[in-house]
Amino acid sequence: RCMSTASRSKLKIGLIPADGIGREVIPAAQAALEALGSDIPKPEFTHLLAGFEYFQRKGEALPDETVETLRESDCALFGAVSSPSKKVTGYSSPIVALRKILDLYANVRPVVSVADTPGGKPAVDLIVVRENTECLYVKQETLEHGPHGKEARATRLITERASRRIGRMAFELALNRPRKHVTIIHKSNVLSVTDGLFRETVRAVPALEDGRYDEVTIAEQLVDSAVYRLFREPHIYDVMVAPNLYGDIISDAAAALVGSLGLVPSVNAGDTFVMGEPVHGSAPDIAGQGIANPIASIRSAALMLRHLGYSKGADRIDKAVDEVVREGTVSTPDLGGKSKTQEVTDEIVKRI
Amino acid sequence: RCMSTASRSKLKIGLIPADGIGREVIPAAQAALEALGSDIPKPEFTHLLAGFEYFQRKGEALPDETVETLRESDCALFGAVSSPSKKVTGYSSPIVALRKILDLYANVRPVVSVADTPGGKPAVDLIVVRENTECLYVKQETLEHGPHGKEARATRLITERASRRIGRMAFELALNRPRKHVTIIHKSNVLSVTDGLFRETVRAVPALEDGRYDEVTIAEQLVDSAVYRLFREPHIYDVMVAPNLYGDIISDAAAALVGSLGLVPSVNAGDTFVMGEPVHGSAPDIAGQGIANPIASIRSAALMLRHLGYSKGADRIDKAVDEVVREGTVSTPDLGGKSKTQEVTDEIVKRI
Ligand SMILES: CC(C)[C@H](C(=O)O)[C@@H](O)C(=O)O
Ligand SMILES: CC(C)[C@H](C(=O)O)[C@@H](O)C(=O)O
Repeated sequence: RCMSTASRSKLKIGLIPADGIGREVIPAAQAALEALGSDIPKPEFTHLLAGFEYFQRKGEALPDETVETLRESDCALFGAVSSPSKKVTGYSSPIVALRKILDLYANVRPVVSVADTPGGKPAVDLIVVRENTECLYVKQETLEHGPHGKEARATRLITERASRRIGRMAFELALNRPRKHVTIIHKSNVLSVTDGLFRETVRAVPALEDGRYDEVTIAEQLVDSAVYRLFREPHIYDVMVAPNLYGDIISDAAAALVGSLGLVPSVNAGDTFVMGEPVHGSAPDIAGQGIANPIASIRSAALMLRHLGYSKGADRIDKAVDEVVREGTVSTPDLGGKSKTQEVTDEIVKRI
Repeated sequence: RCMSTASRSKLKIGLIPADGIGREVIPAAQAALEALGSDIPKPEFTHLLAGFEYFQRKGEALPDETVETLRESDCALFGAVSSPSKKVTGYSSPIVALRKILDLYANVRPVVSVADTPGGKPAVDLIVVRENTECLYVKQETLEHGPHGKEARATRLITERASRRIGRMAFELALNRPRKHVTIIHKSNVLSVTDGLFRETVRAVPALEDGRYDEVTIAEQLVDSAVYRLFREPHIYDVMVAPNLYGDIISDAAAALVGSLGLVPSVNAGDTFVMGEPVHGSAPDIAGQGIANPIASIRSAALMLRHLGYSKGADRIDKAVDEVVREGTVSTPDLGGKSKTQEVTDEIVKRI
C-alpha cells in the first residue's frame, strides 16, 4: 500500500527533530537519505520547529509555519518530544496534533529481531498497525468538583470510518507478507461498544473488498493477554492491528523483545502524506551526549521511502543497517556497544 | 494493611468458580484452606453461581443471590470468566460488576519470580496495585450514527477519591517491603486531565499522612515505557500503582516474566471485604482436561488470608507452594510439566 511516486523531480522532506535526542538522530536519517543519490528524487530538506522545549521558549508547541510547510512537502521525519514532568497549562503534544491535523491515520511499526532463530527466521517479525487519530487521543477531557473531590473524565472515541481504514491498512500490509495473518487487538469483554465496533469493523473489511484478502487469516486477542503472549510466544503475531492506546503500549512491548527501542522505526501514514518517526522518546537521560542510537530514525526514513513507493532506496538503507547491526562491532550503548551516534551513522552511510 | 481479624469463630468464604478452568482451580484453593486446620477460623464455604456460561443458561451473569450471600460472607474466591466471542446483548462481565458492587477498589497482584538470581534475590519481585472501580471500566458507552457511519464513545472516569485510596493502598504495601518504592503509572503526556489527576493525587498521599510514608520513595513512568522497562529491567519496580486498564495490562505483562499466568494470584480488596482471584482467565482451550495450574488460585487464597490478618495461615500455604514450584517435579503443562491439577494440589496440600 504505497502512494503514487508520480514523477517527482525533487522530494520535499520536512525535518522536525523536536526535543532531546530527536535533535541527534534526525541528522543521521538525513545523512542516510542523502547517501542514496539517484535512487530517489533529489531530497530537499526543510528544518522545522516544534516540541516541548520550543513551547517553553515560545508558548506554543507546534507553530503554524511548521504545519504549513509540511502541507507543501512530500513527507517528513519527526524526532521525539519530551513530556512535561508536571501539568503545564496550554501545552499539548505536537506529535499527537500533527497526526490529527495531517490525517496520518495509520501508525505502522514493524518490529523485527536481528538475531535469527536456528531455523534462520527472525524470532520476532511483526508489524503493529496502530490507529492514530482517535481513541483516548482525541483529548476530550473535563474536570469537575463533586462531593468527594475532583472528578475527571476523558472520552474514548472509536468510529467505523477510522476502524475501517486502519483495518484496510492492516490487510494490505498482510497481503505483502509471507504469513498473511492479522490479529485484531481489543478489550471488547469490557468495552463492548467501542472495542466491539473496532473489532466488528476490522473483521468486516475483507467482505468489502471482494476476495482481495481471501488469503489473509484473522485472529483476535484481548489486549492484556496480547501483551502476555507477545512476551511468551511472539512468533504467533504477524500483523497486529489495534486502537490507538493499545497500539502505543503494544509497540513498546514488542520493541522490548528485539533488544532496544533504539532499533524500532515507524511511519505515520495518511493517504497523501507520510511522516517517519522513531518509536523511542526524547530520552532526556542521555540527550546531548551524542550516544543515541540513530538506527530507529534511519529505518524510519527507509520506511517512509517505502510508503512513498521508493522501495529500491528503502532496501539499500535497510540492508546497510542490517549489516551493521548483525556485525555488531559499531553500536551504541543501548545495544551494549561503545560507539557514538556519529560513528554508527558513518558506518551505515558508508554501506548505503 | 489488613482488616481486623476480630474474633471470628468461623470464616465464611464464598466460592464463585464461574467459567472454564475456574471450576477446576477453585476446588484446589478450597483444599488448601481446609488443610490449614486451627491456624484460621473454621472455614465455611458457600458455592455461588456467576459467569458467562451461567448467563447463557439463565440470561443473567450475576444472580442477586450470589451478591447477597457475598455480603454476608467474610471473603470470597473467584475463578475466571469467559469472554463472549461476539457481542452478546445484555451480557456484562460479572467480575467487573462484583468489584464495583462490593467496592473492592484495590486489585493487588504480587508477581514474584521463582528462580533466584545468582545473588539469591528473585529477579522479579513486584506488586501491581490496580485501581479497580473506575477508568474505562465504568462501562459508560454510547453508539451513534454519524455522517461517516457509526461512532462509539466510552467514558474514562478518574476521581480524586479513588486515586487517593488506591495510592494509600500502594504506600501501605510499600511500607512493608524492603525496597519501599512506589512507581506511579500513567499517560499524562496525552491524558493530562484524567491521568494528571491520578498522578497528582497519588503523589499527594504522603503529605496527608504526616510522616508515615517518609521512607517510601516515589517514581513515575508512562505506561508504554513502563511495559518496555518491565521487560528489560523488571528489577527497577517494587510497587506499581496504576489506573484500572493500565493495571490490567501491566499485570499480564509482569506475569509473562515469571513463567506463567498460572502462578500469579490477586485479591480484589475493599475496606471490609476481600476476594481472591487468579490473574489468569478461563482458558477455554484447556478447560475440562484437568491440567490447569491450581497455583494462582491457591496463592490467591493465601493472599486473601493475608489481607484478612491471618498471616500465619497465608505463610503456610505460600511456603508449601514455593517448595513445590522450586522442586519442579510436580507441575502442570504451562510450566513444562506433565502433572494434573489434582496432583499439584495434592502435593501442595501434603506440605501445608
Ligand atoms: C509522545 C507520545 C504522545 C507518543 C504517543 O503516545 O503516541 C509516543 O509514546 C509514541 O508512541 O509515539
Ligand atoms: C475478564 C476481564 C474483565 C478482567 C479485567 O479486565 O479486569 C481480567 O482481564 C482481569 O484482569 O481480571
